Amino acid sequence: MYEHPLRNIIKACDRAILAKDFDSLMEHYADDAALVVKPGMIVKGKDNIRSAFISISDYFQDQLVVKQGDIQIIEGGGDALVIMESQLFYPDEQGATTEITRRATYVFRLENDRWLCTIDNSYGTSVLDAEST
Amino acid sequence: MYEHPLRNIIKACDRAILAKDFDSLMEHYADDAALVVKPGMIVKGKDNIRSAFISISDYFQDQLVVKQGDIQIIEGGGDALVIMESQLFYPDEQGATTEITRRATYVFRLENDRWLCTIDNSYGTSVLDAEST
Repeated sequence: MYEHPLRNIIKACDRAILAKDFDSLMEHYADDAALVVKPGMIVKGKDNIRSAFISISDYFQDQLVVKQGDIQIIEGGGDALVIMESQLFYPDEQGATTEITRRATYVFRLENDRWLCTIDNSYGTSVLDAEST
Repeated sequence: MYEHPLRNIIKACDRAILAKDFDSLMEHYADDAALVVKPGMIVKGKDNIRSAFISISDYFQDQLVVKQGDIQIIEGGGDALVIMESQLFYPDEQGATTEITRRATYVFRLENDRWLCTIDNSYGTSVLDAEST
């Protein structure tokens, strides 16, 4: 069965985040990529994206669990739009588990036969909610 | 006040659709762009996208009204992810007006100082709903 190469790249990114292997993670990003850290807060460039991932990892202290759900990949003009459902689980202040479901939107660009992430927006279309507040 | 050039391009596309000027519309698409006609149905290439827009226009018989709402543009790695709220109004079979709000996701690529649409997905993250049915 054909599996889009981006599925494996996204799995590799998840594994790299879990292993805190940010060097491997950054190999999948374009030099001037953008990461939506939270709605209204965007960082650009590999160094800043790497720092943001380290901060997020430290914040959750290894207690963030991510499960990937449905995924759709739409390719056109050398770009790919990845739409993916993710479930996030993490402990709240009372020690109970908080569960959030997100629909992320990622943009990848095919350069020299390699897919590189240009825009990492795990908030999907909900970035519009932040703008209107 | 700075206005991102993509805002004007999207307005120009809306005007072209309204005027059925599909030649002008197609100037804003990459040659091998992808259009999500409906969830699960994607057409590729300018000729097919042009045909799809003509079919959609004929189907609604000039009775489709589109109002654009909030918009966010996230640029990275030479791509731009546009997230935009649209309200669609059209008459149903009983003559009443149906209103639908969508959050669209469009990908544009900057080539030779021109923004070209590579992926036109007006269904946003709701394409995942179709996949799971």
